[in-house]
Amino acid sequence: MDYRASGVDIDAGHEVVRRIKALAAGTRTPGVLSDLGSFGGLFALDPSGRDATTLVASADGVGTKLKVAFLARRHDTVGEDLVNHCVNDILVQGATPLFFLDYLATGRLTPDVAVAVVEGIARGCRANGCALLGGETAEMPGFYADGEYDLAGFVVGRVARDAVIDGRGIVPGDVLVGLPSSGLHTNGYSLARKIVFERLAWDVDTLVPDLGTTVGEALLATHRSYLPAIGPLLGRSSAGGSGGPLVKGLAHVTGGGITDNLPRILPDGVAARVDARAWAVPPLFALLAARGQVPRDDMYRTFNMGIGMIAVCAEADAPAMLDALRGHDPAVIGRTEPGAREVRYAW
Amino acid sequence: MDYRASGVDIDAGHEVVRRIKALAAGTRTPGVLSDLGSFGGLFALDPSGRDATTLVASADGVGTKLKVAFLARRHDTVGEDLVNHCVNDILVQGATPLFFLDYLATGRLTPDVAVAVVEGIARGCRANGCALLGGETAEMPGFYADGEYDLAGFVVGRVARDAVIDGRGIVPGDVLVGLPSSGLHTNGYSLARKIVFERLAWDVDTLVPDLGTTVGEALLATHRSYLPAIGPLLGRSSAGGSGGPLVKGLAHVTGGGITDNLPRILPDGVAARVDARAWAVPPLFALLAARGQVPRDDMYRTFNMGIGMIAVCAEADAPAMLDALRGHDPAVIGRTEPGAREVRYAW
Repeated sequence: MDYRASGVDIDAGHEVVRRIKALAAGTRTPGVLSDLGSFGGLFALDPSGRDATTLVASADGVGTKLKVAFLARRHDTVGEDLVNHCVNDILVQGATPLFFLDYLATGRLTPDVAVAVVEGIARGCRANGCALLGGETAEMPGFYADGEYDLAGFVVGRVARDAVIDGRGIVPGDVLVGLPSSGLHTNGYSLARKIVFERLAWDVDTLVPDLGTTVGEALLATHRSYLPAIGPLLGRSSAGGSGGPLVKGLAHVTGGGITDNLPRILPDGVAARVDARAWAVPPLFALLAARGQVPRDDMYRTFNMGIGMIAVCAEADAPAMLDALRGHDPAVIGRTEPGAREVRYAW
Repeated sequence: MDYRASGVDIDAGHEVVRRIKALAAGTRTPGVLSDLGSFGGLFALDPSGRDATTLVASADGVGTKLKVAFLARRHDTVGEDLVNHCVNDILVQGATPLFFLDYLATGRLTPDVAVAVVEGIARGCRANGCALLGGETAEMPGFYADGEYDLAGFVVGRVARDAVIDGRGIVPGDVLVGLPSSGLHTNGYSLARKIVFERLAWDVDTLVPDLGTTVGEALLATHRSYLPAIGPLLGRSSAGGSGGPLVKGLAHVTGGGITDNLPRILPDGVAARVDARAWAVPPLFALLAARGQVPRDDMYRTFNMGIGMIAVCAEADAPAMLDALRGHDPAVIGRTEPGAREVRYAW
């Protein structure tokens, strides 16, 4: 099985992104500092640069992880997933979150469910020091199956213009430091659900000894926020005397896995060699690969495989980086090298 | 028929909003200047106030107007509806838009449909001078019927802190100036569709002489942006010598109609008397009322009835206001008076 078999067409997605980029380019205003397709969009409040305040914004959803929440009748965690996902998407550009808004759409509004969803959002906001500034709760008869809903989130953060992290300083020989994920985060659920609930015909309450818990619990593990780990590194300089930042680049490992996300921050002429033996792939991923007979390449292009965030620094800074990340289980998972903007795995 | 019969439970919605407000209050940070429930959320970049830049953000959807787009196989207008809706929601607090992000969710991604939706978004962004800064296109197998999708938008604008419009200066005797809507905008579609497509069993191509067009065209008329009309008034002072702003308050007539939206900007002790004979209700609303046997109170609490934006000014400023809005068909539709924060209609 692969991701396409689960009903998600990555190539159609790429085509859409390409055509949408052209449309977005036609709406550019002087404040826009980024192209569509970066983790967060960058907007300078003062295009002249006298005021360096740069806003970073991102929109995201929870994907079909929601279906697991429906099956488990557990609605108070997906909101936290959503906030953390959004926060990570602007964190990778050096931004800390200011505020968050949500969009919750349902066929028939069940107050207790809607409130549980927002409880998760509010918990995530508090943990990230981010205000829940507004949102929309839409009741749309005929759109969603009974008891189902969709959920989208939108975050705005800030960063000083000269503190934006965009990977442009990455050169061959830099070190890739990975931070563990807490589970699937919010990606790959269409494939995971197909394997677990269709092929294996398990239900959310099935206890899986390998996982030490039920399938539902394992799949609903909350998407981790990397702000507590990475936040203290923002603004720190390289000790190497270059005057550059300690953190040269950050990749949030979301849809597309390490394979598709790490290249997003690589400059031309720089490839990433990732040593897949450098960390222990958590049992949930091994289970999905084995039981779903998912080819290895598809696994690493669909799931985070246990690494949710990758930070890039100069080799000389690696000890300081690892020390600063102590307590967050960092691991050197590879290096950059000359080559095309791609990931090359050592298995 | 009324809105509840169409599957939308306004009271359940109010209960959810009340409980969500309490959750949001627990996430407040020093920058937050508004309570949840204002048209847009207000956030001060510098809570000390030295830098007066205030961000205003809003999230919204298109509601079940999307179902009309599906029936008509017309996907390039709902994006413009969404942008204009969001822009109006921050305009009423005095803000002009900076950037917009979208969330487009579908069961199976059809590139041409997704691109058509974003074409509408991009057109709306260009017309409002607002950058399309990012977005998320989610393919969620099993969530949406074939050919269907949901669409949400997020806008961020700016306003100087002392130029925020919030209605606090409204006093009895002020004048209510209405601006025409272009149709249903994005509210009341669950009820409208039930009347038109179920009770009358019309289809989108049914030609309705009263409307001079097909039902589909009439229902898909684009939500109007009031930025061209209202934008030039922002920052203008009252000529009355009070030193206050010309525009004391702005209400965007969305879900809940004039009945529920106008009170949102009234201070305690001020009611609004709206003369329902002051403007001609467009034929589409008359048709829905007659064919759906919708009680008058429900009509004015569900639909905008032909007025999409209401501006409030001092009586002495009314001539200047009407002059400044010339070309946008303004009409004096009522006055404020002492009383509870409610709308009182003269029929």
